[in-house]
Amino acid sequence: MKAILVNDDKSLRWDEVPNPILSEDDVLIKVEYAALNRADLMQREGDYPPPEGCPEWMGLEVSGEIVEMSDGAKNKSGYKIGDKVCALLGGGGYAEYVSVKYDMCMPVPKNCTMAEAAAIPEAFATAYLKLFVEGHAKAGDTLLMQAGASGLASVVIPMAKAFGLRVITTVISDPEKIKHLGADLVVDTRVQNLPSVLKEEEAAGRGIDIAIDCLGGPNLGECLPYVKYGCRWIVIAALAGERTTIDLKNIYKKNIRIIGSTLRSRSPEMKAEILSNLVKEVWEKVANGEIKPTVYKVLPITEAEEAQDILYRGENIGKVVLKVS
Amino acid sequence: MKAILVNDDKSLRWDEVPNPILSEDDVLIKVEYAALNRADLMQREGDYPPPEGCPEWMGLEVSGEIVEMSDGAKNKSGYKIGDKVCALLGGGGYAEYVSVKYDMCMPVPKNCTMAEAAAIPEAFATAYLKLFVEGHAKAGDTLLMQAGASGLASVVIPMAKAFGLRVITTVISDPEKIKHLGADLVVDTRVQNLPSVLKEEEAAGRGIDIAIDCLGGPNLGECLPYVKYGCRWIVIAALAGERTTIDLKNIYKKNIRIIGSTLRSRSPEMKAEILSNLVKEVWEKVANGEIKPTVYKVLPITEAEEAQDILYRGENIGKVVLKVS
Repeated sequence: MKAILVNDDKSLRWDEVPNPILSEDDVLIKVEYAALNRADLMQREGDYPPPEGCPEWMGLEVSGEIVEMSDGAKNKSGYKIGDKVCALLGGGGYAEYVSVKYDMCMPVPKNCTMAEAAAIPEAFATAYLKLFVEGHAKAGDTLLMQAGASGLASVVIPMAKAFGLRVITTVISDPEKIKHLGADLVVDTRVQNLPSVLKEEEAAGRGIDIAIDCLGGPNLGECLPYVKYGCRWIVIAALAGERTTIDLKNIYKKNIRIIGSTLRSRSPEMKAEILSNLVKEVWEKVANGEIKPTVYKVLPITEAEEAQDILYRGENIGKVVLKVS
Repeated sequence: MKAILVNDDKSLRWDEVPNPILSEDDVLIKVEYAALNRADLMQREGDYPPPEGCPEWMGLEVSGEIVEMSDGAKNKSGYKIGDKVCALLGGGGYAEYVSVKYDMCMPVPKNCTMAEAAAIPEAFATAYLKLFVEGHAKAGDTLLMQAGASGLASVVIPMAKAFGLRVITTVISDPEKIKHLGADLVVDTRVQNLPSVLKEEEAAGRGIDIAIDCLGGPNLGECLPYVKYGCRWIVIAALAGERTTIDLKNIYKKNIRIIGSTLRSRSPEMKAEILSNLVKEVWEKVANGEIKPTVYKVLPITEAEEAQDILYRGENIGKVVLKVS
């Protein structure tokens, strides 16, 4: 089969690789769409190796059709050959076929296209992990979601709203572009200072309970004085800078937690539990349109490099998806 | 009755105050000994107000005799008038009497003096909270316990050893002084650089799983590159400096958590659960001498100021205790 490989000069090529081998409990998916994630760019740079036992090629999520099943999957999964699924992968999605444990698959939600379905697993599972597993989100909480135009925010914000949270988000482009996501307050950090905004919010009794932060940078430390007691500040990347200075008094006096949390590194059991919770608690909200995967652009798999450039440029609002078959 | 009050110039006086009133489920304790905590100093400076409903005077733990009981305490506690107990308080321990919910009391462990018993509740409950509730400590984990000569360390280190952890600790005085606590590695930070030591340890496959840190300061950020994946770094104070610069890459790549955690602010239910677990899991290790409260000095309550000076000077190894009656 073919997959996207990284050349020595970091350019990409669509080339022959060995077919996947089915392990115990695996299903083989004929990939229709593979969605892009920022982790793919880090992996391409050599900065984020795939977990052991995963293919070397990139790709954390796909949609497609089950074309082969291990005995374990046949007996335990409830799926059958020909079922359309989306799946969360340790890697290997930029390919014609991928094999994956059946409990990493989810049925395609009602009213979703296959391109949209590919854009679901990583972002939805990540959103669920941050909001509910790490963030202990409950109705009435205030969430700060950094980078409101990101793929993750396009899921987190509607998910948080659907579960009754108040949402503050940030943009560095026209706030109107993300109006459809339904955030309560959009801070344009080109013209507004986030710590100052949070200071005002806190003074008005609306300090933040949860932050989901892919930016980091000096702002992280500067915002801490204005978060609520017990705030969970979840760090998933540091696109605005890796160093931040924090005043530890905020941490120990307000029982704040700074939490490093990546989905990819979680145990298979926890991932399976998150996916199962998504289907149980969130699928109906996807089916009725309350939460919608946002696909920014679909490109053919042979244009993976151009597709990743969109992420490098930070141009996309929502997910970029590759059409494989 | 009498209690220690703070004058306008921050000096202390032993003066008349109203007698405590018993609320539902309270017992009245005739205080024999009250132990000192660093939080007392912060409260004296006006920097750490007692929780609502607590007396204004300092004191987080006492030992003494139950001399009066509410109906709730009579019916539910299993205690009776005349029982010797030690108790965890929201405040008010520097006094002749204190009233407290019965589930904040613990029986005095076998083979403990009343002076030792006063030194137990705060340090043991804090140690249990940090190690097991926040730290998820298990046999084989490596613990970094900052300030090995502190009152808390005198409990945490033997408790961690009794439960099978490996312990690294730090001192700024003769390492021999804390030899009896049983730490595996004592780092004298007058002559050794902690981040360098942790770097070597990590290179030898002994990275730390849990840190309990009352020092903070620049060292915190400098140590993070050398902790293990999933490390819980628990911040309880910042005696070495309130500002630290952290490289967020450590946080999100290694799923590190920086956790602000104070016992005093926990819900009454969680405190009661911790005390109950202490009696169930730890009391036998106290009775058989595996874990021992370390009393550095006992002074009369009228010398509370001199007693606190010992803490200000950082002179004590173990707890300073006031004799009230």
